[in-house]
Amino acid sequence: MEHIKNYIEENKKRFLDELFRLIRIPSISSETEHKDDMLKAAEYWKDAILKAGADKAEIYPTDGNPVVYGEKIIDPSAPTVLVYGHYDVMPVDPIELWKTPPFEPEIREGKIFARGADDDKGQAFMHAKAFELMVNTNTLPCNVKFMIEGEEEIGSPNLGAFCDGHKELLKADVILVSDTGMIAPDIPSITTGLRGLSYMEVEVTGPNKDLHSGLFGGAVANPANILAKMIASLMDENNHITIPGFYDDVEVISDEERSEMAKAPFSLDEYKKALDIAEVCGEKGYSTNERTGIRPSLDVNGIWGGYTGEGAKTVIPSKAHAKISMRLVPNQDNEKITKLFEDHFKAFAPSYVTVEVKALHGGQAYVSPTNMDAYKAAELAYTDVYNKKPVPVRSGGSIPIIATFEDILGIKSILMGFGLESDAIHSPNENFPLAQFYNGIETIPHFYKHFAELMK
Amino acid sequence: MEHIKNYIEENKKRFLDELFRLIRIPSISSETEHKDDMLKAAEYWKDAILKAGADKAEIYPTDGNPVVYGEKIIDPSAPTVLVYGHYDVMPVDPIELWKTPPFEPEIREGKIFARGADDDKGQAFMHAKAFELMVNTNTLPCNVKFMIEGEEEIGSPNLGAFCDGHKELLKADVILVSDTGMIAPDIPSITTGLRGLSYMEVEVTGPNKDLHSGLFGGAVANPANILAKMIASLMDENNHITIPGFYDDVEVISDEERSEMAKAPFSLDEYKKALDIAEVCGEKGYSTNERTGIRPSLDVNGIWGGYTGEGAKTVIPSKAHAKISMRLVPNQDNEKITKLFEDHFKAFAPSYVTVEVKALHGGQAYVSPTNMDAYKAAELAYTDVYNKKPVPVRSGGSIPIIATFEDILGIKSILMGFGLESDAIHSPNENFPLAQFYNGIETIPHFYKHFAELMK
Repeated sequence: MEHIKNYIEENKKRFLDELFRLIRIPSISSETEHKDDMLKAAEYWKDAILKAGADKAEIYPTDGNPVVYGEKIIDPSAPTVLVYGHYDVMPVDPIELWKTPPFEPEIREGKIFARGADDDKGQAFMHAKAFELMVNTNTLPCNVKFMIEGEEEIGSPNLGAFCDGHKELLKADVILVSDTGMIAPDIPSITTGLRGLSYMEVEVTGPNKDLHSGLFGGAVANPANILAKMIASLMDENNHITIPGFYDDVEVISDEERSEMAKAPFSLDEYKKALDIAEVCGEKGYSTNERTGIRPSLDVNGIWGGYTGEGAKTVIPSKAHAKISMRLVPNQDNEKITKLFEDHFKAFAPSYVTVEVKALHGGQAYVSPTNMDAYKAAELAYTDVYNKKPVPVRSGGSIPIIATFEDILGIKSILMGFGLESDAIHSPNENFPLAQFYNGIETIPHFYKHFAELMK
Repeated sequence: MEHIKNYIEENKKRFLDELFRLIRIPSISSETEHKDDMLKAAEYWKDAILKAGADKAEIYPTDGNPVVYGEKIIDPSAPTVLVYGHYDVMPVDPIELWKTPPFEPEIREGKIFARGADDDKGQAFMHAKAFELMVNTNTLPCNVKFMIEGEEEIGSPNLGAFCDGHKELLKADVILVSDTGMIAPDIPSITTGLRGLSYMEVEVTGPNKDLHSGLFGGAVANPANILAKMIASLMDENNHITIPGFYDDVEVISDEERSEMAKAPFSLDEYKKALDIAEVCGEKGYSTNERTGIRPSLDVNGIWGGYTGEGAKTVIPSKAHAKISMRLVPNQDNEKITKLFEDHFKAFAPSYVTVEVKALHGGQAYVSPTNMDAYKAAELAYTDVYNKKPVPVRSGGSIPIIATFEDILGIKSILMGFGLESDAIHSPNENFPLAQFYNGIETIPHFYKHFAELMK
């Protein structure tokens, strides 16, 4: 497959220029002021798919941000790969921690630094370029469909309806996704599980207005103190989540499976060093990889209340807020968990405050079987490029829409991620190594080749 | 004393105009962008004191905001009253909760609505106008000195040094202060105790950058969760503060004193109704007034960390912060408490986070004796105007500089406050009833008269 390496070598500068143009569009889906940028990013993708060689590409409006769909049908009897990705990105705050502006990509130390460099502009764009490569070298062995959405980072609220309304259009043998990571640059891996998500926002109200903490302190419940207390009580001393019924449906993993998973290369020292922490912390009785791979978790994603400016203000706030999300494992139903959280949080609120709980978004966990053709094709593709069999791993992350795809479209997904743990996705200074970007473009055509052969 | 009522009646419109001009200067001491406004407010006060009839008035620079000093010496052998007040005000956020702009005073329902309307522009300005009244009606029986500072709301960091450097200038028989409240418009009271303050800011750091809560959630300590847990553990189930040694020096109040204090008029139902709370909440074993009057307290004044914007961001924040303050009672040393808090907060931080603790400001508690001449003069003054003997009350608030005055200048203070609980000081829609403003101006000359007579 020399033609792959050659094509990439000849076009690598242009690939990067094209990706940078996409990255420069600040398509933050959670912030309404970026509405126009969402359309710009969708337009950019439509053009990119067409230029890469698609027969057609269109922008489909939804109740939220539009979906870009494009396809090239080489032979109705050939297998069909549906590429899924997203053009939206996470917010950039805290902006002051970025070394260079988040939407002005810069290459440093062989990495692209920018919001979306990995998640998911960089990774999704590898598929556009691998597709172009196969078209231009006359090596495309499958029909290809692209479905690129603009709401993944806010939980894909409209993609289920889109799938439901376009089942025929989206018919495919597998959904191919690059929106996850691999263990290390030289250790390829395939993500075989994703956690589900239940994301809540809570508001605790005490007195009807901010009060002077001298005149009232000690006599009136302070909602910030109460919120802290309520959050603290959501986990016990073993970091076990205390919401009644929370663990009822958690998938039980056998000791055999756990010892199999434990074989994946992992250095706790390097992990701690990379994060600059003295100790890891998590549910008692589980390893670090188990804590993110097979066990649910609960995190405060944001907390605010009272005076947060410069200096001292002696105030008892009227309200305090938190965003709290739970990562779920297979069999845990996110809607059920959302309800359990809501009921629990309201039930254990003390009588001197009032509590509001709002579900922001959620999604089901997903397990990708290792005995399907697409898994085998991916395994062979990585082996071709890396000379190493990839390791199956359970990721702690969530791509809620993946479970929805299976429900609505009846299609399994294969998660060929090229991100690295050091990519700082969702964080300041997000980055994506150039080598990962080009290796991804190289690996994808191998997948198509093996998939077409296995499906014969 | 008909001349007092007459003078007020003839000049009430002008008094208000002059106060409004002072209020319109946004002299927020905790926000550095208001540096120029601090100078403007000081200039305004200097002019006001001179116009009211002072022999001289000057602005004294300090390491922070300047102090305005002015005096009128009628007779070196007459008693001297030193009026203390402050021209700085609290921040205005949350600004969206103000019905009218905070620095554009408006009269509604017989009240002045504005930041500083009560605390302390409205209350301090009563003294300027009462002074003018006595000068213009030839009834001033004492020497008067004014000391108006611009850093009360940030803990008067430079006023101690100013006092230390101007002991001769500030010599007086009593310090007269209107920066507290009274029980109700028809129930005059004199504040005989103020709580001390220890105001801290804490920072909890987990991983060295914000992390993706899916990839890391459950495996790495989340500083927002940890901060919540640490805050929760600062008080036990009886709302007793758990910092070792915290209560060691707390003044013990006898049952007799407690039952005497319990005679002050108070309606728990009205209190709850005014704050719109179902239950009060505080230290077990104490009444609401005891919880603010004679017991220390601990409040979160602000908390922040992670994503606090619109929508959902799945992030484990690198850092979480809180502003936490403690109100202290007589005998508790604020520097000792600050140290106890700092040591405790650091000591009980788990090994998987790092903690920084910073003292923002503090001050000692103060008790004003009821057997001194100034107390008796105030008692007689209120009785003249309200036809009721005022009730001595312990306030939950703090004016840390009052204890400093006694330490450095050796002068006791008398706290003749005309604020009401409904004035919402430090909160949105701060207000000050016109009746309180004018009654204050009327009561003050009675104080001077009785004080001069008692000191003969």
